[in-house]
Amino acid sequence: MLELNFSNMMGEVIGEKGISEREIEGLKTAVFDIDKRIKSRERPELAFIDLLEQDVSEIKKIAGDIRGNFDNFVILGIGGSALGPRAIIDALSPFHNLDKKPRVFIYDNVDPRTLDRILSLTDIRKTAINVITKSGSTAETIASFMIFWDNVEKSGADHSKIFIATTDPEKGNLRKIAKEKGLRTFSIPPGVGGRYSVLCPVGLLPAEVIGINTEEMLKGASDIHKRCSDPEVWKNPAYLFGVLLYLMNREEKRTINVIVPYADGLKPLAEWFCQLWAESLGKPGAGLTPYPSLGTTDQHSQLQLWMEGPEDKVIIFIRVNDYAVDINIPKVFQDMDGLNYLGGHTLSELIKTEQESTELALARIKRPNMTIGIPGIDAYHMGQLFHFFELATAFTGFLYGINPFNQPGVEEGKNFTYGMMGRRGYETKREDVEKAREKKACWRV
Amino acid sequence: MLELNFSNMMGEVIGEKGISEREIEGLKTAVFDIDKRIKSRERPELAFIDLLEQDVSEIKKIAGDIRGNFDNFVILGIGGSALGPRAIIDALSPFHNLDKKPRVFIYDNVDPRTLDRILSLTDIRKTAINVITKSGSTAETIASFMIFWDNVEKSGADHSKIFIATTDPEKGNLRKIAKEKGLRTFSIPPGVGGRYSVLCPVGLLPAEVIGINTEEMLKGASDIHKRCSDPEVWKNPAYLFGVLLYLMNREEKRTINVIVPYADGLKPLAEWFCQLWAESLGKPGAGLTPYPSLGTTDQHSQLQLWMEGPEDKVIIFIRVNDYAVDINIPKVFQDMDGLNYLGGHTLSELIKTEQESTELALARIKRPNMTIGIPGIDAYHMGQLFHFFELATAFTGFLYGINPFNQPGVEEGKNFTYGMMGRRGYETKREDVEKAREKKACWRV
Repeated sequence: MLELNFSNMMGEVIGEKGISEREIEGLKTAVFDIDKRIKSRERPELAFIDLLEQDVSEIKKIAGDIRGNFDNFVILGIGGSALGPRAIIDALSPFHNLDKKPRVFIYDNVDPRTLDRILSLTDIRKTAINVITKSGSTAETIASFMIFWDNVEKSGADHSKIFIATTDPEKGNLRKIAKEKGLRTFSIPPGVGGRYSVLCPVGLLPAEVIGINTEEMLKGASDIHKRCSDPEVWKNPAYLFGVLLYLMNREEKRTINVIVPYADGLKPLAEWFCQLWAESLGKPGAGLTPYPSLGTTDQHSQLQLWMEGPEDKVIIFIRVNDYAVDINIPKVFQDMDGLNYLGGHTLSELIKTEQESTELALARIKRPNMTIGIPGIDAYHMGQLFHFFELATAFTGFLYGINPFNQPGVEEGKNFTYGMMGRRGYETKREDVEKAREKKACWRV
Repeated sequence: MLELNFSNMMGEVIGEKGISEREIEGLKTAVFDIDKRIKSRERPELAFIDLLEQDVSEIKKIAGDIRGNFDNFVILGIGGSALGPRAIIDALSPFHNLDKKPRVFIYDNVDPRTLDRILSLTDIRKTAINVITKSGSTAETIASFMIFWDNVEKSGADHSKIFIATTDPEKGNLRKIAKEKGLRTFSIPPGVGGRYSVLCPVGLLPAEVIGINTEEMLKGASDIHKRCSDPEVWKNPAYLFGVLLYLMNREEKRTINVIVPYADGLKPLAEWFCQLWAESLGKPGAGLTPYPSLGTTDQHSQLQLWMEGPEDKVIIFIRVNDYAVDINIPKVFQDMDGLNYLGGHTLSELIKTEQESTELALARIKRPNMTIGIPGIDAYHMGQLFHFFELATAFTGFLYGINPFNQPGVEEGKNFTYGMMGRRGYETKREDVEKAREKKACWRV
């Protein structure tokens, strides 16, 4: 079971820059209240909590078809629709495309160089394509969908055998196309937003395609949910996670939350978390900046800044207790001082020691940090991590008194793009861009 | 040639949160003075500037041998030693390992799961191994080097044919081993630190191994260096880059510098920049936090936070003018409002439009941003980007009055690791860790 160790957040350990028990106690009533709101599903977007008991038989069936009949599996999606699948694949099947079938390509941009390479690496007739967009009209996803659609057309293959649409159960252009063309579909349940969707078909279909048992994943999520259902903040790791970062932000103005898994395979999980945290909480009145990192690697990149830079950060480690495989460091070069101490240890000893040492180095100079410990990297614990962070994010949004489910700030940029691309109704936006261009030209070197 | 457009940093465009010409003028004398210090190579670490004229014939020769005789090329290094090579490979040979030889594996951690996979994917006798550490004793790099050394031993292959050591020309354990065992070596010139080393054999050997002409890369660096040699701040993009971020930090307390290339292949370049900027400037008295991002992808992840979150960020776009390849968005689904506007455009139109739209959306609400434009993604312009950022970083360190070449903050964590791993002389550090463990156990859930 996932565990939260928050000693190095507390005043008793790191002194006056830490949090006191009394401060946490002071939020107890607020937490009780939020707990009630979550349990009553006060907002429809809390539906992500109800994904944990879903039936995955249809997902398993279609995944089996893809595994059996296709060499490649392409995911078209952006934001949560891409980050969730990537987090699963990199954690549970590292270097997947080098020796596994079907190979998986996640195209989550509109970069022509990337798509050109994907097209040249794949035979379209042997490629299953999962297009994922809740609204059914995300510009980036739809643009690439249109390109693939046309390529399938030209290849003579059958669209209905190649495409799988994951979208709203009723609404939107993608749903309409799927109905008309007889595509296989999965639904993103009403209320479940893109960044809270990894444990619905958005993440579960790609997981099953690479051979992950999603029942295990949902079981992990379900178990951590029970653990995080206690209205008492001291006994609830998800609520405590939010309360601690909230207090560090309020009292100490620590606005940056660095997340540092000590495992290469969890780097995309850190990026998935950052999207969840940033889009949910990046609002007036809140505004924590999540920062993705990787141990031990980024000890040689960011640690200097965490140690001696401005005191605006909380470091959140993810510690893995058992890597399942291990490698001995052999006793070579034993006559060399400065190398020989490593021989006889194992890599997992070294990586775990470095995590603990970094934690302690920060605590020694009173820089707050906490550690999420997981027993291992498998489907069950990935499910735990996903659900833990989703629940903690929704809770923290409520604690700040903001809506953790919308993203109004991204609209204006989209509107300018619509204007420039000639979408009807956005003509004035085009003029805005053109005017800005003239102004911009003045300042450059 | 790389170009800096900084209109959206200026008060004339974004109002009172912007910078005035007078503020920049106010730093003119300081900039003149720093320019002199850089040109006189006041500090030995400025030697990175003198890499631009180097002879690459030996690099080409050994790279040719690797290309001709090995299926795999493994890089052992961490921090700058890994980020530089990765930035080059992902930018110039995306999805390299899927259809190119030799495949390249960068092992920049001590994660046993990753190494286990690399070992199972490679035949050690057909694998060239480039071990990169300036000091010759970086724990992570040496641990993996010891493992590979032993594996080569057991395979019966010849160490001197497989290993290439890139290290200090005289000092350190790795140099000593290389001499004793007759390994081929490259030198990291004295003065050149890890994070300023991409344009020495650290980055150039991997580049040549994947078939990149490093003379082009050095030519690009050399050309941008000339462009950035003007002591007059208004005419020097590297100095102006530093001055603008310095002023935004001083007056407006903007501590976070987000770097957003609009190209998948430049994401590792953003991470390389973040290491350079964070370790160089993350010091008392400075402390800018660089943040890696990716357009358009992270418009669906971080843009909400940039738009409505705290006003602590400057967004730095990298815009690509010509992607070299392009893909048409076909006119399919033309009866569907909300999709049909995309047909007839190209992907590169869309990605460039989105970049410009995001820039404008930020400027509209007075959030500062600037744009580094590059004509294309090739060896020549990668050389420009690398050298531009290195020069800008050194300059900015001087502007803050700090040393941009050291990283004293990382030592304490290393010492605890040495203690726990039993390195002689670090016994008291071990006791520190053990004492801390007892204390930590109290606060967890």
